[in-house]
Amino acid sequence: MAERMSIIVFSGTVDKLMAASILGTGGAAMGMEVEIFLTTWGLEAFRKDGYKTNSKDFEEYAPVMMEQMMAKKVPSWMDNFKNAKEIGDVKIYACSMTMELFGMKLEDLEPIVEDVTGVATFVERAKEGKITLFI
Amino acid sequence: MAERMSIIVFSGTVDKLMAASILGTGGAAMGMEVEIFLTTWGLEAFRKDGYKTNSKDFEEYAPVMMEQMMAKKVPSWMDNFKNAKEIGDVKIYACSMTMELFGMKLEDLEPIVEDVTGVATFVERAKEGKITLFI
Amino acid sequence: MAERMSIIVFSGTVDKLMAASILGTGGAAMGMEVEIFLTTWGLEAFRKDGYKTNSKDFEEYAPVMMEQMMAKKVPSWMDNFKNAKEIGDVKIYACSMTMELFGMKLEDLEPIVEDVTGVATFVERAKEGKITLFI
Repeated sequence: MAERMSIIVFSGTVDKLMAASILGTGGAAMGMEVEIFLTTWGLEAFRKDGYKTNSKDFEEYAPVMMEQMMAKKVPSWMDNFKNAKEIGDVKIYACSMTMELFGMKLEDLEPIVEDVTGVATFVERAKEGKITLFI
Repeated sequence: MAERMSIIVFSGTVDKLMAASILGTGGAAMGMEVEIFLTTWGLEAFRKDGYKTNSKDFEEYAPVMMEQMMAKKVPSWMDNFKNAKEIGDVKIYACSMTMELFGMKLEDLEPIVEDVTGVATFVERAKEGKITLFI
Repeated sequence: MAERMSIIVFSGTVDKLMAASILGTGGAAMGMEVEIFLTTWGLEAFRKDGYKTNSKDFEEYAPVMMEQMMAKKVPSWMDNFKNAKEIGDVKIYACSMTMELFGMKLEDLEPIVEDVTGVATFVERAKEGKITLFI
């Protein structure tokens, strides 16, 4: 059975979405089963036309990073997640509680999100895994 | 022996306290032994009349979430932690180093905090567990 | 074989660098093998004359903490990392992708950073460990 990596994507800033997508890709490349659990601002970022923002902590520096990413043609975090799903076993779930709180339906989300799940189910699966991260 | 979930609550923003309390509740509901380690801003939030704030990254959006939480009568993060302690084995500890740095005593904290502990003790227990998160 | 603690240091704010350095020290003190993986703003903070900042979420409160740290002669996060390396098995690696993105070379970084490594290698090692944190 594949080893599991579970990532709670809570933050919706571009820098952390990028980190989550790269770590998920790294896990998939290592043959791990990757589960992404989108909650709060992380889920909002996967809403079609959702709210994305840069980190306030590094706002003076973020434009430099964005420029470098454009110049070096770094794929976007969404492209990374798509790529991760192509190379390995990566599942992306939306937190049911956030869905209800924000009044979202599955069709409001980017099609890369497969399903809605509860936090208890996520925790139950994560605890059988090797790595669990909160981003 | 119960499987352990350890959560370092570093952040004191309402959104992350909410996430920590929901994940802790999820762990307790799954029969896990949950240890919460309050440090830095996370500990400050458990001080009686402590400093709580919204995340700056999502400040334009946070009021919408708060409104929804009120309208939908979502329990507060503190109520979630109280509930988690009622349904399962949940312990909340204050980081001794932060206590000293901020000049806090146990009686300055909300009574839900059981005791003060050091980071080495927390790490020693967390490494025997199944999930360890930094929030 | 020593139990492993892996810490992804993504954030470059002083409060989180402090938390990472204290948790790493705690792991080293418990005899764990500690691996620090510096990425994005966390790596920038280890650049010579790199950009460090306080957390925006707690900006009203951060000066109080800084003052207390000065008054109580709390060692800096860099001193903590140096100390952790002296008392135990602590390795600090720079994320190769961030290095390339920011156009950094190993000699641009503080000498405490031993080497450059990729995210897949980090994940492969972290999954054999006991604790993996994203800070």
